[in-house]
Amino acid sequence: MLEQSRKTYSIGVVGIGNVGWHYALIAMRYFPTRELCLVHKRAITPDLTAKKQVVLRRFFKVSELPKNLDIIFVCVQDSELEATLQEVANHVGENTLIVHCAGSVPLEAIPHTRRGVVYPLQSFKKGEFVKYNQIPFFIEGSDEESTETLENLFLRVSRKVYPQSSENRLRIHLSAVLAHNFSNFLWVIAQDILEKYQIPFRVLYPLLRSAIRNLEEKFPKQLQTGPAVRGDKNVIEKHLNALKEDFPEAENIYREFSDLIHKYFNENKDS
Amino acid sequence: MLEQSRKTYSIGVVGIGNVGWHYALIAMRYFPTRELCLVHKRAITPDLTAKKQVVLRRFFKVSELPKNLDIIFVCVQDSELEATLQEVANHVGENTLIVHCAGSVPLEAIPHTRRGVVYPLQSFKKGEFVKYNQIPFFIEGSDEESTETLENLFLRVSRKVYPQSSENRLRIHLSAVLAHNFSNFLWVIAQDILEKYQIPFRVLYPLLRSAIRNLEEKFPKQLQTGPAVRGDKNVIEKHLNALKEDFPEAENIYREFSDLIHKYFNENKDS
Repeated sequence: MLEQSRKTYSIGVVGIGNVGWHYALIAMRYFPTRELCLVHKRAITPDLTAKKQVVLRRFFKVSELPKNLDIIFVCVQDSELEATLQEVANHVGENTLIVHCAGSVPLEAIPHTRRGVVYPLQSFKKGEFVKYNQIPFFIEGSDEESTETLENLFLRVSRKVYPQSSENRLRIHLSAVLAHNFSNFLWVIAQDILEKYQIPFRVLYPLLRSAIRNLEEKFPKQLQTGPAVRGDKNVIEKHLNALKEDFPEAENIYREFSDLIHKYFNENKDS
Repeated sequence: MLEQSRKTYSIGVVGIGNVGWHYALIAMRYFPTRELCLVHKRAITPDLTAKKQVVLRRFFKVSELPKNLDIIFVCVQDSELEATLQEVANHVGENTLIVHCAGSVPLEAIPHTRRGVVYPLQSFKKGEFVKYNQIPFFIEGSDEESTETLENLFLRVSRKVYPQSSENRLRIHLSAVLAHNFSNFLWVIAQDILEKYQIPFRVLYPLLRSAIRNLEEKFPKQLQTGPAVRGDKNVIEKHLNALKEDFPEAENIYREFSDLIHKYFNENKDS
């Protein structure tokens, strides 16, 4: 373990949504924080329990924040990020380290000298318990000192803290959207189809559980099964016909997957 | 628990591929089998360990099988299924119960009076250990006695044995392909992208593990997150540009998912 310095920090969190809520909690519980300033427009639900050693202050506007905070995490949603970063940068002194936590926004989007990114590879929900120590945090800083500060702080939270460029972070975010958000939507479609036939979605649990378990021993490439990889046109046709009845919006996706999977595995086999 | 009868069975398994291997193992270990006849063209690897009480016989051709077996499981791949079912039906006596195990093939595809289906909702691999007692088996029979026989036999293997019509079984298979095979391919794409940037695929494990854990508490509809559901066009554009460089074949799928997810959740919200 790294020896932790005795330095304490004054920290701001702007935007207490899903990520901001967790970053505020992390700053309260894991960082050597002496002062925690939250900027949020609405009441925070569920509320964050304050810790004795930390002075907790709440504000409605960025312009009310102390100008000399050590670090400010800007956790507003992507569509408001650019404007909020500008507002924060205009307001604070040059020693403040301004940090955002978006996967697909480059470090350079922060119009300030000392800047950084801490992107968590996890879907946070306000108030829902997560084991932080398993979550990968991808860190980037404008200078060595900023990177190191963020790295050391988040190493108190998780063992999986990795410096990573903006270019790579964009790919990590993209991969997470493909692997997680899109898979989840396939599960939505499956549930809708099954429920139409009074079959509970939970019949799929054992299959999905073993899919994830297998991933820890083999790569997905070694685990691809099903009619598409076998090129089983008969089954594919039956499924497309069933989709026409049950979920016509997904016919294209079914076709695209079947073609892509078949090509991918048969071209790879030839090479 | 049901009281098991003292009846013993002579059982055939035709085709010792991934499913056939496991069905032969199940017949050997769990059923009250007195005679087990396997039909397979090549050597069986890994070999099946015989049990003392069971007479194990091996044949190369369907035509060599005893004509009066109680049950024959036909486990050849879908493309050979029709021809093999015909061959088996021509060969055996009318009391033999002929069973296939394909998700998307109706019961009626078996040209024989006593017929049944046992479809396992699991990706089997020859020789790879599986906890059978968690696997759902979907059962169908041409008559009450056949259904009951299959139900009672498979209740020795798993608690999750459900009678289900051919129409419903097709939907279950379709859902499994969507939820499992297609998700797996999304993981393949993610791995290829990440590896291009020297990022190990395992960074996604915690996210995927928690995705599956969450599924047991909430429905996928409640768990949808990401840029598509938020309609975050900025991020979507960045991802499409990254895909152009890293995995152009998946651009269409990304677009389809983003549109479909956005529509699905925004129309549902309005209604």
